[in-house]
Amino acid sequence: MDAGELDDVIARAKAQRIPKGTAVFRQGEPTKSFFVLLHGRLKVVKVTPSGQQVLIRFVNPGDIYGIAKALSREDYPATATAVIDSVTLVWPSDIWDEFMTSHPSMSLNVMRMMGDRLQEAHTRVKELSTEEVERRVAHTLLRLIAQSGRSTEEGVMIDFPITQQDLAQASGTTFHSVSRILSGWESEGLVTIGRRKVVVSDVEGLSHLAEQAPSGKE
Amino acid sequence: MDAGELDDVIARAKAQRIPKGTAVFRQGEPTKSFFVLLHGRLKVVKVTPSGQQVLIRFVNPGDIYGIAKALSREDYPATATAVIDSVTLVWPSDIWDEFMTSHPSMSLNVMRMMGDRLQEAHTRVKELSTEEVERRVAHTLLRLIAQSGRSTEEGVMIDFPITQQDLAQASGTTFHSVSRILSGWESEGLVTIGRRKVVVSDVEGLSHLAEQAPSGKE
Repeated sequence: MDAGELDDVIARAKAQRIPKGTAVFRQGEPTKSFFVLLHGRLKVVKVTPSGQQVLIRFVNPGDIYGIAKALSREDYPATATAVIDSVTLVWPSDIWDEFMTSHPSMSLNVMRMMGDRLQEAHTRVKELSTEEVERRVAHTLLRLIAQSGRSTEEGVMIDFPITQQDLAQASGTTFHSVSRILSGWESEGLVTIGRRKVVVSDVEGLSHLAEQAPSGKE
Repeated sequence: MDAGELDDVIARAKAQRIPKGTAVFRQGEPTKSFFVLLHGRLKVVKVTPSGQQVLIRFVNPGDIYGIAKALSREDYPATATAVIDSVTLVWPSDIWDEFMTSHPSMSLNVMRMMGDRLQEAHTRVKELSTEEVERRVAHTLLRLIAQSGRSTEEGVMIDFPITQQDLAQASGTTFHSVSRILSGWESEGLVTIGRRKVVVSDVEGLSHLAEQAPSGKE
């Protein structure tokens, strides 16, 4: 986008602070707005009718999100909650079509971003369909450090507070299993675990484990 | 799109016949083209390094597909094979950006379609993460009859040849499990199974089974 286009887009946004722990929108609410995250981190979680939670993704600064209405849905399919204090830009949903048709380069970018998410979702479908739990957790961690890793003396740290429950909900397994797996990896020197903190000390070792031959899975 | 735009788009396409069993493109091949299916049915399958297959989706007439290059990928992430004799339109990948920027209403439609696929992929992630095998197979069948069902005297039939192996690869399970589950359902009068043919005789019963309380899953 050129500077003039960008000015027009920004001029029509409102900025909004989202304190840690609060929701930007909730699953089932009518889709009134779409968003770009300026600062901070969100997690997007879908709840099943029986109350089980599935972590759909983390939203990083620069990401567009909450575009359900733009895609002809009347309600948000999941809940987006701030993991740390965050700041977002907000636009009313009903300007989506006009925005995209009058800013074609923006719409190409949105398509690329949707393509990336679609590929990530298909990768998760593949992992959930063919890999046992330990490899899935390894792939989840490797994806997180690729998207939000920061090098430290201990290794590559996930750049925001993350719990073992988050990892379970992102890997299609239970808190109990994740906890058991991380303890094993910690004693093998692959990871270091703290309170809401995960550091991968041996990225190569974890990658090797993630790619090992399948042990078979129903 | 108005008629003039549509003429321009169609004028730049080539038509291509895809005999049953042949691939339009294969996983790993360079992305030279994107496509719209005119007639027939394709299945899109991703193979893991160890040779396990995951069915990503069926392509129906009117669907756009093979848009990997458009989304800045250099190779196709999966293989698309004709399930029945099919006919497709083909465009060179390098005209994608020009196409989308000069036909904004087309790009809005593509975004909506990608949004639908993203929601379907997230639904599968949710099912694979939280449901045991029988409910997943039920959801797969219900999705298939919603997308490609045809009413017959016996019930709602999936409108193209489909195998129990396909259902296994679309539900993240084994041929053996699908076979066992379908036999059970057949004796309960929920489905009728033939060679490459699945008919849902009791849609309400199958929906009820798909929504039953979870029995817990690692």
